[in-house]
Amino acid sequence: MLETPLLTLVNYASLVATNAARMRLAAGDGRRLLEMGLRRAQGPDGGLSASRYSYIGGFDATSNVLAGKLYDIPLFGSLAHSYITSFTSLSDVTGQTLVPAGGAGAARDLVSLCRRWLSRVCTFLSLPEDQVNMSELAAFISYAASSPNNFVGLVDTYSVVRSGVPNFCAVSLALDELGYRAQGVRVDSGDLLCLSLTVRSTLRHCADRFSVPWFSTHSHHRDQRHHEKDLVNLQLLPNAVDSVGVGTNLVTCPLQPSLGCVYKLTQVSGTPRIKLTEDKDKMTLPGKKTAYRLFGQDDSPILDLLTLDDELLPRAGEEICCHVLSRGGERVSVRAARVECLHHVYYKDGQITMNLPTTAEIRSHAQRSLNNLPLKHKHLQEPVPYQVAVSTRLQQVLREVMEEGVPNPGQAPPCPTSLSVAASS
Amino acid sequence: MLETPLLTLVNYASLVATNAARMRLAAGDGRRLLEMGLRRAQGPDGGLSASRYSYIGGFDATSNVLAGKLYDIPLFGSLAHSYITSFTSLSDVTGQTLVPAGGAGAARDLVSLCRRWLSRVCTFLSLPEDQVNMSELAAFISYAASSPNNFVGLVDTYSVVRSGVPNFCAVSLALDELGYRAQGVRVDSGDLLCLSLTVRSTLRHCADRFSVPWFSTHSHHRDQRHHEKDLVNLQLLPNAVDSVGVGTNLVTCPLQPSLGCVYKLTQVSGTPRIKLTEDKDKMTLPGKKTAYRLFGQDDSPILDLLTLDDELLPRAGEEICCHVLSRGGERVSVRAARVECLHHVYYKDGQITMNLPTTAEIRSHAQRSLNNLPLKHKHLQEPVPYQVAVSTRLQQVLREVMEEGVPNPGQAPPCPTSLSVAASS
Repeated sequence: MLETPLLTLVNYASLVATNAARMRLAAGDGRRLLEMGLRRAQGPDGGLSASRYSYIGGFDATSNVLAGKLYDIPLFGSLAHSYITSFTSLSDVTGQTLVPAGGAGAARDLVSLCRRWLSRVCTFLSLPEDQVNMSELAAFISYAASSPNNFVGLVDTYSVVRSGVPNFCAVSLALDELGYRAQGVRVDSGDLLCLSLTVRSTLRHCADRFSVPWFSTHSHHRDQRHHEKDLVNLQLLPNAVDSVGVGTNLVTCPLQPSLGCVYKLTQVSGTPRIKLTEDKDKMTLPGKKTAYRLFGQDDSPILDLLTLDDELLPRAGEEICCHVLSRGGERVSVRAARVECLHHVYYKDGQITMNLPTTAEIRSHAQRSLNNLPLKHKHLQEPVPYQVAVSTRLQQVLREVMEEGVPNPGQAPPCPTSLSVAASS
Repeated sequence: MLETPLLTLVNYASLVATNAARMRLAAGDGRRLLEMGLRRAQGPDGGLSASRYSYIGGFDATSNVLAGKLYDIPLFGSLAHSYITSFTSLSDVTGQTLVPAGGAGAARDLVSLCRRWLSRVCTFLSLPEDQVNMSELAAFISYAASSPNNFVGLVDTYSVVRSGVPNFCAVSLALDELGYRAQGVRVDSGDLLCLSLTVRSTLRHCADRFSVPWFSTHSHHRDQRHHEKDLVNLQLLPNAVDSVGVGTNLVTCPLQPSLGCVYKLTQVSGTPRIKLTEDKDKMTLPGKKTAYRLFGQDDSPILDLLTLDDELLPRAGEEICCHVLSRGGERVSVRAARVECLHHVYYKDGQITMNLPTTAEIRSHAQRSLNNLPLKHKHLQEPVPYQVAVSTRLQQVLREVMEEGVPNPGQAPPCPTSLSVAASS
């Protein structure tokens, strides 16, 4: 009854949060990362999980409105290509008016205002006005009229340079005249790094020419099938991209499309159990356990320690004997500056026993933990594996269950101090 | 409002059904394919989609009980490793009794009956009885007592040959004595092809020795991270595997973890629309369309034809002019033995207009269509792409919308008959 629900809830959540955290590392802290994977996720509920756990992993916002509502995640979106192509000509928006910001003044005819700005922009940029797509302008005007403070120009439906950008400038400058600020430009196709620089430069020129300083700092946004290395390139190559929308490659985790967490019995009625099999990787650690994180002088984690549930708490400042799992149980002695218990019981005997954290609190916790982690463990390629160790008593139970089949969790022998792990990273 | 829900419902469904269909092609028709991906899918609802569309794609059953209930999909499952490791010794099942099949006779002590059979089996197979794991036997007895006609031996928790198989034989032969038939053996680890042969041979020997003929035809089942090529190998290499459970690599579709279906506007208020962009792959086909499949003399499909919605129905036996999209709109003439309309309207003006097919009916339809498809299109590697063509009028609208921006869907010019597609494959 429990195995599959638990795995279903844990596996994909951990996978997509990890993928999001890797993308956050790849993109650096300076750019906004927007999750836009709903339509590629495994059904509507898969999309909800993806939005929630991408946010926890380090993304800044989602385009999934329901996730925003349910989990209090900041929302971000713009208009669709199909919205733009639904317009045929300017006559589709005849009579579209807009009241100046703050309600001060009479409604203005937005269409003629935008047309006048378009002429000025085209003249200034030396672009032929008859090559600007009027159905695109109609779409922009209609969208801007309905949410004038949230206008984003999706500029690549026809031609970015000859149509999308002049239309965006015209509508944004018309909005500015009415006291509104447009949000930015979105480009989904073409050479994005290069286009972002072209667009930014055009906006800067318009900002100077028409004395609208804020216009030069306009955000530039792109959506595409971003991979981790595209995000790394944003840090390495010249561009003017402020925010990035990631969909498919975030929610489907193509680098590793599944996480293989399993559910195994480790203790029953007080007796440690083990799955001893011919396949060594499938062996389990016996006994009811708890987990601690040991921190060094610089407050970065040294390793995580698993102990039996009834062992004494490992204490900061004292020597703690650890058997490192990845080194065949090799004994090392760690003197930790701080010890944190990682295992908290939120649900017991059918009752929730602690307040559940909000999504935002979980996100802060995850981001703090990741920031604390030494850089060597965070390389996207070939990171140094983070160590997990077991206590001497747990190591003993493991050996006994393997050798005899009958565990005897008694007193631990003293730990040799010849080996030690440096507290620094 | 519509774009994301539609894509969310269509994209992953198509992807996983396609992946399942490829696995069915890889495995051949002779083996049962069981979907077991719930715990690796993207959340509980992602798992439901996976189960339903894997079945449609050609799988035979699922381990997802809720999917079985909701969509009437055959269920299959066995016991878990954690169930086996939860037993400590035979004393856990002391007093376990079973009434003979049909309720004829007094309840028998199942533990002592199984122990007697274990001794006979071990003696016959020359296996040391003291190496057989008694907690595994306890688990088998407990499971068999609760569902004696559905007993499946999961034999790889400790040692397949020295413990799992003799325990399975002992319990199955005890069940046989009481008139029940066990279902089969499941192995998840080790060299599966080789182990399946070993197990089958052991069961055959037991069948002969103890005069239980049905025992030799026992099904052999395996679960693992199967890839397509593992399934192909089942057809190429010697083995005794009757059914295969596929989880992770079915539901996460690692070969292509997402399907890039998009939602584009093609007509508004009777006017065809197009997304003309600098990125040619992102261009759309304008106009409200319908789709036909043209079949040859052998009743296998030749190509699919898109026409404008108001065109005359293409008719069997007549020459149909087709512009093949993958060849830049090259005109070919097709004389079809049969024409099938692919486009059916199930939902219109807020109403469901036709009876919706059941999951089983959808599965039959999909399997019939796939069986009909010429082999050249079904190679797992580098298949010949199936052709899609447009009618002359649609081709004309496309050209006009591209060149002029103003479409004029008028009369089609006559089609040249110099080129033709052979009706056979």
